[in-house]
Amino acid sequence: MPTDARLDLQFSRAVPLSPEQLWDGWTNPQTLVHWFCPRPWQVVACDIDLRPGGIFRTVMQSPEGHRLPDNVGTFLAVDAPHRLIWTNALGPDFRPQPKAEDDHLGFFFVAELRFTPLPDGQTQYTATVMHQDEAGRDAHAALGFEQGWGMALDQLIALKSTV
Amino acid sequence: MPTDARLDLQFSRAVPLSPEQLWDGWTNPQTLVHWFCPRPWQVVACDIDLRPGGIFRTVMQSPEGHRLPDNVGTFLAVDAPHRLIWTNALGPDFRPQPKAEDDHLGFFFVAELRFTPLPDGQTQYTATVMHQDEAGRDAHAALGFEQGWGMALDQLIALKSTV
Repeated sequence: MPTDARLDLQFSRAVPLSPEQLWDGWTNPQTLVHWFCPRPWQVVACDIDLRPGGIFRTVMQSPEGHRLPDNVGTFLAVDAPHRLIWTNALGPDFRPQPKAEDDHLGFFFVAELRFTPLPDGQTQYTATVMHQDEAGRDAHAALGFEQGWGMALDQLIALKSTV
Repeated sequence: MPTDARLDLQFSRAVPLSPEQLWDGWTNPQTLVHWFCPRPWQVVACDIDLRPGGIFRTVMQSPEGHRLPDNVGTFLAVDAPHRLIWTNALGPDFRPQPKAEDDHLGFFFVAELRFTPLPDGQTQYTATVMHQDEAGRDAHAALGFEQGWGMALDQLIALKSTV
């Protein structure tokens, strides 16, 4: 999709995994809980109903055992194994979420994951995250988007390299 | 989809049209401009890219020639000829719209249209419109949701009865 540097955050890297391995990482709750959140934080619950309008729910917990509020969103496009789009602006059955400022994150986004095979056998992993406004983009960047998504992806690569 | 009386507005009526005629009314710009807006207002422009993530744009004009700001949204589910879901919370390619209070309407919604065949040959036309909060629902109701959708539907029935 067309990007807008003012509103979007993007993370892209060539990884030694197949599109199918990346797809499993993103869409199989039993895989997702092992990599999705940079350690020592962890994902302690995950619900995935893999269809447009289906729930995508994760719950993160600190090393001290403090649980963050549920992250609840829905899928917008499910094109295995190359493209997945989801958002926290709508919930299951596309129901609009309460306003972004009422969400614990404080901003809405739509995230597109693309897993594109490369000639060298690796896969280009590209996450494009679109926000409503610059304030949302800046808040997401300040949460450590670049570092967080990178650390999580490293965990997925390590996980898939051992199985 | 499950409804929530606190957040949703619903309009449902048995109509003497087929699901295909209702689908054409909602998805063919050349049909839509003739009924979508209660006269003497009119739709003076309409763009439809009928796929999830495709644009749904209408522009309404008063009898005095005053154009309202564009209504721009996107489709979320396109299941011809029985179910259509669209929203003004996201634009083309699922890009999040600026905050609802910056929109000329002032609220976001997700609208589901269902066209269900009845045993008597008519079709049950059901529009369910979900909002972020009660304020959004109330603002939409105050704009004349019930009367407006009813008048527009009457225009579609009249249009299809003459062709």
